[in-house]
Amino acid sequence: MPHISNLGSRMPSSPIRKLAPLSAAAKKEGVKVYHLNIGQPDLPTPPQALEALKALERKTLEYSPSEGFSSLRKKLTGYYKRYGIEVSADEIIVTCGGSEAILLGLLSCLDPEDEIIMVEPGYANYISFAKTVHLSVKTVTSRIEEGFRLPPIEEFEKAITPRTKAILLCNPSNPTGYVYTPEELQKIKEIVVKNDLFLFSDEVYREFVYNGKPYLSAMQLGIPENVVMIDSVSKRYSECGVRIGMLVTHNREVHDTVMKFCQARLSPPLLGQIVAEASIEGTEDYARQCFEEYKARRDFFIKGLNEIPGVYSPMPEGAFYTVASLPVEDAEDFCKWLLTDFRLDGETLMMAPAAGFYSTPGLGKNQVRMAYVLKEEDLSRSLEILRAALAKYTSLR
Amino acid sequence: MPHISNLGSRMPSSPIRKLAPLSAAAKKEGVKVYHLNIGQPDLPTPPQALEALKALERKTLEYSPSEGFSSLRKKLTGYYKRYGIEVSADEIIVTCGGSEAILLGLLSCLDPEDEIIMVEPGYANYISFAKTVHLSVKTVTSRIEEGFRLPPIEEFEKAITPRTKAILLCNPSNPTGYVYTPEELQKIKEIVVKNDLFLFSDEVYREFVYNGKPYLSAMQLGIPENVVMIDSVSKRYSECGVRIGMLVTHNREVHDTVMKFCQARLSPPLLGQIVAEASIEGTEDYARQCFEEYKARRDFFIKGLNEIPGVYSPMPEGAFYTVASLPVEDAEDFCKWLLTDFRLDGETLMMAPAAGFYSTPGLGKNQVRMAYVLKEEDLSRSLEILRAALAKYTSLR
Repeated sequence: MPHISNLGSRMPSSPIRKLAPLSAAAKKEGVKVYHLNIGQPDLPTPPQALEALKALERKTLEYSPSEGFSSLRKKLTGYYKRYGIEVSADEIIVTCGGSEAILLGLLSCLDPEDEIIMVEPGYANYISFAKTVHLSVKTVTSRIEEGFRLPPIEEFEKAITPRTKAILLCNPSNPTGYVYTPEELQKIKEIVVKNDLFLFSDEVYREFVYNGKPYLSAMQLGIPENVVMIDSVSKRYSECGVRIGMLVTHNREVHDTVMKFCQARLSPPLLGQIVAEASIEGTEDYARQCFEEYKARRDFFIKGLNEIPGVYSPMPEGAFYTVASLPVEDAEDFCKWLLTDFRLDGETLMMAPAAGFYSTPGLGKNQVRMAYVLKEEDLSRSLEILRAALAKYTSLR
Repeated sequence: MPHISNLGSRMPSSPIRKLAPLSAAAKKEGVKVYHLNIGQPDLPTPPQALEALKALERKTLEYSPSEGFSSLRKKLTGYYKRYGIEVSADEIIVTCGGSEAILLGLLSCLDPEDEIIMVEPGYANYISFAKTVHLSVKTVTSRIEEGFRLPPIEEFEKAITPRTKAILLCNPSNPTGYVYTPEELQKIKEIVVKNDLFLFSDEVYREFVYNGKPYLSAMQLGIPENVVMIDSVSKRYSECGVRIGMLVTHNREVHDTVMKFCQARLSPPLLGQIVAEASIEGTEDYARQCFEEYKARRDFFIKGLNEIPGVYSPMPEGAFYTVASLPVEDAEDFCKWLLTDFRLDGETLMMAPAAGFYSTPGLGKNQVRMAYVLKEEDLSRSLEILRAALAKYTSLR
């Protein structure tokens, strides 16, 4: 029998989805599971986007262009303009979710053994994509006790070697919700220019910045040849399932290289593009409502978390996640136990163990990532379950 | 300015899509372009699949499971059963088109420098995916004068080294339309077993076999641990744009490894899955009509091709492509010239130069791949254009 690749055996399981079988088993028993593990918003997709789907007159669902429909890319330029980002339609490539944008961006810019610097805790799938491309990942650690702000720039400098080719930032950050300040981004810019690096900037949570300060995109840093922006309509319009993301860059060489990979996979999803295109304009009220809703959920949820004995969460300034520390030694064990053993009136909770968001072994062991994407009533119930579960779990040990 | 990866610079442009800018320029001038370059069927998607989309009651277009909806996978088991393929729903993984299935299959089974054997001419994007995974591709050559039948099995044996990990077959073949016989597949099986290889079998054209003989899937060869089947609903239901493919294997280790990559990219397209699921049952009449239509087109088109002086095409037994030789030295130059210079009453033709479907430099230079996916009237006009263009092009040289 032939065996899988070494790469395949080294690939980590997704910390967001790896407990899914336990959750499925609990549901089979009739247990209600509150999902704080995944950034799957419960807010509706803009109705006009669903309408566009129903108004579809195509008789054949054919391939779209490898770079995505130009009508969609044109609308996106208008959207970016509203955020002070000046790009043309031919600087945008439509991808199968932000995920594909990251993978193709890495493949186009870095070779095996090249080094990429990321902040930890970071979006776990970055590591998976970096492994897929055989990159060497260097992490600099942001700390819960510092609210996960940008680590001192000296940490980045220490991580740089002759093989370093890129820095990857997620801003606002998944999983911490931290929003990098213009001053922090300025420091990143300097180090990027000094070392001639690519700066991958994942900005899919741009809409969700709650600190009242203006948001600065990496595209506004004045280093057009260095920046590769990753974007997605998934969270912004609550349409994660349509799998429409974007890779945006002023760097023509990068653009044309990404396009070669895009041609090989033929085209991004046709129907998702129709939904995405219909979501961009005339949704200002929708966006405002979503923003207010998430902000209210954040305020409610983080306050509630910090009221549970032994639990600590910084106040996230953006996105809709937080990384919180729990009064347990092994958060993964606790998360599993919640799904297999703990029930509060037939209900339980699913969270993502945060260790999977760190590269450095041992870090984040007592932390979990939670997405506050549920309605307040469900968040409230989740807090009750967490409080009761922690009391029981800690009493058992 | 940072530069792209070596991998990126080595990536080939798609021979199917690389002339697209020339075609776009011609269209801008008002020229009508007949597309024989790409397997984009003009047949309608099953109406019931479009209806399913319009009947959608979801308010939020959320992520689907990383492996695809179980309802879709269950329907697929019924579909496969009709073809004598026994698989369970948990042996099927839904992917973003057959393209993603190939890429994730290769990543899961082969490491950089591992060797994979393919038949040339072969589907050009296999080479792109193999390069993405840093594989070493060995090709054995099938020949137009032999109707592109399986090369002698000794050729495969000669290509095998200690690094050989897999053979990839496309059956029926894109680009040649050849359908491997049970005897040929038996020989492949022997060599696969003897050398403990994976057999990747791309069977997306299973529906379209015109030789009246029973079709044998690699899944029926009795080597369950070796076979990874690649599949897609794209061509079968004329819904290429929905990006729904499948990776099917009895090999649990491979399945579980592919799933790790699938979790990293979160989920396959939601809307495409709804369309695909609605296409599977109750479309027997639709499938028959498509089959008859393609068969008639094949008969008409291949006959017409062989009537043009200097043109030769074998009779393809399956799929909806053919590789034909033309009375020109450099088919790529001819294909470009068609788009930039040649017009017949304001119309021209786009074909894919076949050299891009060969790995061995110099092979296929006078050949083109054509997809006979247009209605007879358009195929007829394409033949007229090709005849007139060849007469003019050869007279100019």
